[in-house]
Amino acid sequence: MIKFTSDELKVVKKIEVLKNEAGSHSPSFFTFKQKLPEVDIKVDACFLSNPYATDLFIEYFNREILNTGNIRDLLESYPSQNGVIAEILADFLKVDSGNIFIGNGAIEIIQAVIHNFTKRKILITIPTFSSYYEYVKEGIEVVYYNLEKENNYNLNVEEYIAFVKLNRPDTIVLINPNNPNGGYTKAADVCRIIEELSFVDNIIIDESFIHFAYESESYQLVSLSHLVKEHPNVIVLKSMSKDFGIAGVRAGYGVMRKEYVDLLLKNGYLWNSNGFAEYFFRLYTRADFALRYDKVRVKYIVETLEFIRELRQLPTIKVYPSMANFVLIELQEGLKSTEFVAKLLITYGIYVRTCDDKIGLKGQFIRLASRSKEENDYVIQSIKACIEMNEVLKLVNETVV
Amino acid sequence: MIKFTSDELKVVKKIEVLKNEAGSHSPSFFTFKQKLPEVDIKVDACFLSNPYATDLFIEYFNREILNTGNIRDLLESYPSQNGVIAEILADFLKVDSGNIFIGNGAIEIIQAVIHNFTKRKILITIPTFSSYYEYVKEGIEVVYYNLEKENNYNLNVEEYIAFVKLNRPDTIVLINPNNPNGGYTKAADVCRIIEELSFVDNIIIDESFIHFAYESESYQLVSLSHLVKEHPNVIVLKSMSKDFGIAGVRAGYGVMRKEYVDLLLKNGYLWNSNGFAEYFFRLYTRADFALRYDKVRVKYIVETLEFIRELRQLPTIKVYPSMANFVLIELQEGLKSTEFVAKLLITYGIYVRTCDDKIGLKGQFIRLASRSKEENDYVIQSIKACIEMNEVLKLVNETVV
Repeated sequence: MIKFTSDELKVVKKIEVLKNEAGSHSPSFFTFKQKLPEVDIKVDACFLSNPYATDLFIEYFNREILNTGNIRDLLESYPSQNGVIAEILADFLKVDSGNIFIGNGAIEIIQAVIHNFTKRKILITIPTFSSYYEYVKEGIEVVYYNLEKENNYNLNVEEYIAFVKLNRPDTIVLINPNNPNGGYTKAADVCRIIEELSFVDNIIIDESFIHFAYESESYQLVSLSHLVKEHPNVIVLKSMSKDFGIAGVRAGYGVMRKEYVDLLLKNGYLWNSNGFAEYFFRLYTRADFALRYDKVRVKYIVETLEFIRELRQLPTIKVYPSMANFVLIELQEGLKSTEFVAKLLITYGIYVRTCDDKIGLKGQFIRLASRSKEENDYVIQSIKACIEMNEVLKLVNETVV
Repeated sequence: MIKFTSDELKVVKKIEVLKNEAGSHSPSFFTFKQKLPEVDIKVDACFLSNPYATDLFIEYFNREILNTGNIRDLLESYPSQNGVIAEILADFLKVDSGNIFIGNGAIEIIQAVIHNFTKRKILITIPTFSSYYEYVKEGIEVVYYNLEKENNYNLNVEEYIAFVKLNRPDTIVLINPNNPNGGYTKAADVCRIIEELSFVDNIIIDESFIHFAYESESYQLVSLSHLVKEHPNVIVLKSMSKDFGIAGVRAGYGVMRKEYVDLLLKNGYLWNSNGFAEYFFRLYTRADFALRYDKVRVKYIVETLEFIRELRQLPTIKVYPSMANFVLIELQEGLKSTEFVAKLLITYGIYVRTCDDKIGLKGQFIRLASRSKEENDYVIQSIKACIEMNEVLKLVNETVV
C-alpha cells in the first residue's frame, strides 16, 4: 500500500487516462511532455534502449552529418528504395539482398508479415509483445501458448514443440529474448524447434533484443538470420531501436524467403525508409562503426547484469531471469503495480511500465528497463525507498488495527 | 539526334540500368551517389521540392533541435502514436482528429487506402503517378480514363463525370494538380465531380502539389480536405515532401471518414511516424512557421511561373500548362527523350526525368522540376545549348546526305 496526497492523486488519474489512450503500449516521451507537462521525467525506465549506443550514433551523426552540412540531404532527399538498402545490408548479414525487407521499424514488418502471410491460424506465446496478437486480421484463429510462471516464464522447448504439433498453426512467433520477461531460448533449442516444426509455414523469430543476449563468456552475438537460407519458413525480424538506441529513426529489417520480399514489394512499401534510417543502415554495416558498437553493447550488458544483481538484493520484489535490457519484476506483500508505478513517477520522476495489460501474466508486475549506470543506481535507490515506505505504512497500519 | 562519345555511352548504359532497377520511379539521390559516383549531379531537376521551404525548415531545425541538443530526443525516443499527431493537426486542418490518418509519407496512405478500401474496381486518370495503379491488388479491376493530348492533358470535367457514371467504379483517383503534367482542376469543378459521383465509395483527391496551385491573384491556398465532413466518400491525401521540401523526413496525412481511420489503426500503423516527422508536424501547425512558410511558397510560385515563361520561349520543345512545381515538356523535331536526358546529365550535370514509362503519354516527354532561381537559369541555358547542338547536328547531317 502506497499513500498519495490529493494533488498526487490527480496526476495518478491523468497518467491512467494517458495510458488508456495509448492502448496496450506506453505513451511516447513526446506525448507525455505534451499532455502531462507537470511531471518531470528524470529517468525513462520504460524505454528499452541502450543509451551508450545512442551516444555512439550521435557521435558519428555529429561528425558526418551535422558538421559537414549533409543534414540537408537527409532532410530534403527521398531515401533509397527498399531493395537498394537491402543490398547495403546483404554482405553484412551474410544473406542475399533478395531475402531482406527493410521496414519503418520492425513494427511495420510485423504488420506486413501477419497481414499478408498468416492465412489460417497463428500460435502466439504469451506473455509477449501485444502487437503480435493485435495485428491479427479478422477470420484468423489465434491460439495462445502460456509460458508458465512456475518455470519463470521461460520456454519449455519440448512442451512447446508438442503443443505446436497438436495445434497445427500456419504461423508461430518466438521473441528471443522474450518481451516482457527477457527469457532467452538458446540457439541450439531454437534450431531444434525449427527442425521439428517444418510443417509450419511461417516461423517468426523476433530478434529485436538479441544484441543483449549471449551464450559465451565473451558476450558474442548469436543471431539466426542466416537460417532463412536453409529453412524458407523461417522469418527473422529485427528492430534496431533497442540495441542501437535509435527508436526515433525507425529502422528495422526482416530476413525472409525471396518470394515473400517480392510479394511485399510488388505493390507497396516504396520509400518506406527515411533519410536518417538510410544513413543508419549504411553506418551499421561499416567495420569502424561495428567495432565501436560492439564495445558499447558489451559495456551495457555488463552494467545491466550488475543492475539485475542489485535488484535481486531488494526485499518484497521478485526479479525474473532476463537476457534482455530489462527485467520483469513481481511485486509482493500487497504492493500494487499501478500505485508503485505512480509513486515512482510522481515522487522520483521515474517512468516505469506496469504490466497490468499483459495477457498471460498473473500478479502485480512491472517491467523495468536498464539505462545508464547513473540512472540505474538512482532507480535502485528509489525502488528501495518505495519498498521501505510500504513496510513503514504496513507497520503503522498494523499498530492502528 | 544527340551525339555521345564512347565513354559517355557507357554512362548512358549505366543510367538505363539504374532507372530499370528503380522501376517506374527515379533512382534516389543516395542511390545515384552510391551507384554512379562518376556523374556529378549539379541540379536535380527530377526532384519535385521547394528548396526555399527546405531552407526555412532547416533554419527552424537548427535553432530548435540542433542548437538546443534536442536532436537526441528525436533520434532516441519513439515518436507519438498516430492519433496523438492527428490531434496536433486537427485544429489547423479544421477537421476532427478522428478523420486524420498520419502516414510515413503520402505513399504509405496511398498503399493503405488502395489495399484496404478498394474492393472491386478502380478508375485511374492517366497519365498519373504510377503507384496508384501499381498498388492495386490482385482481383481488382482497373479502368483507365485518358486525359487527352489535344486538351493539353487537362481534365474535361463533364466527360470525366460521364465516363465514371458509365463505368461505376468503387474508387476514383484525382491528383490535383496532376503529376506528371501539372494540370489543375478548379475547386468548383472538383466539387461538381464530388456532387455528381456520390455513388462512388472512395473519391481520392491527392493534393500533394496543392500548395503550388492558386485561383486568385494573391496565390491563396485552395484545399478541399474540409469536404470530408459533408462527403464521407471523399479521401484527401497530402504529401508534405514537395511543398515543404522534406522528402527525407517522410511526412504525409490523409483526411478520410472516421471508420476508415479506425479500421487502419485497429490492427496496424503503430509508430509509423518518426521523430523528425513528428517535429515537422508540430512545426507545421504553428502560426509563426505558417506565416513564414507562406512567403517562401509564394516566392517559389512566382519564380516557377518565370521559369515556365522562359521555357516557352525556347524552340523545338512544347511546354504543357502546369500549376505544379514542374512542367511536362514534349520534345520535337526528332529529339529523343532518353538521349536528351542523358546529355543533360553527362554534359551539364542536370538530372531530369524521362517520361517514357508513363502510361497515357505518347511522344518524347520529359518532366522538369522548378528549383531555385539560380538553378532554373542554369537549366534554361543548358537546354538551350542542347537544342542548338541538335540543330547544328541536323544541319551537318543534311549536308552530308
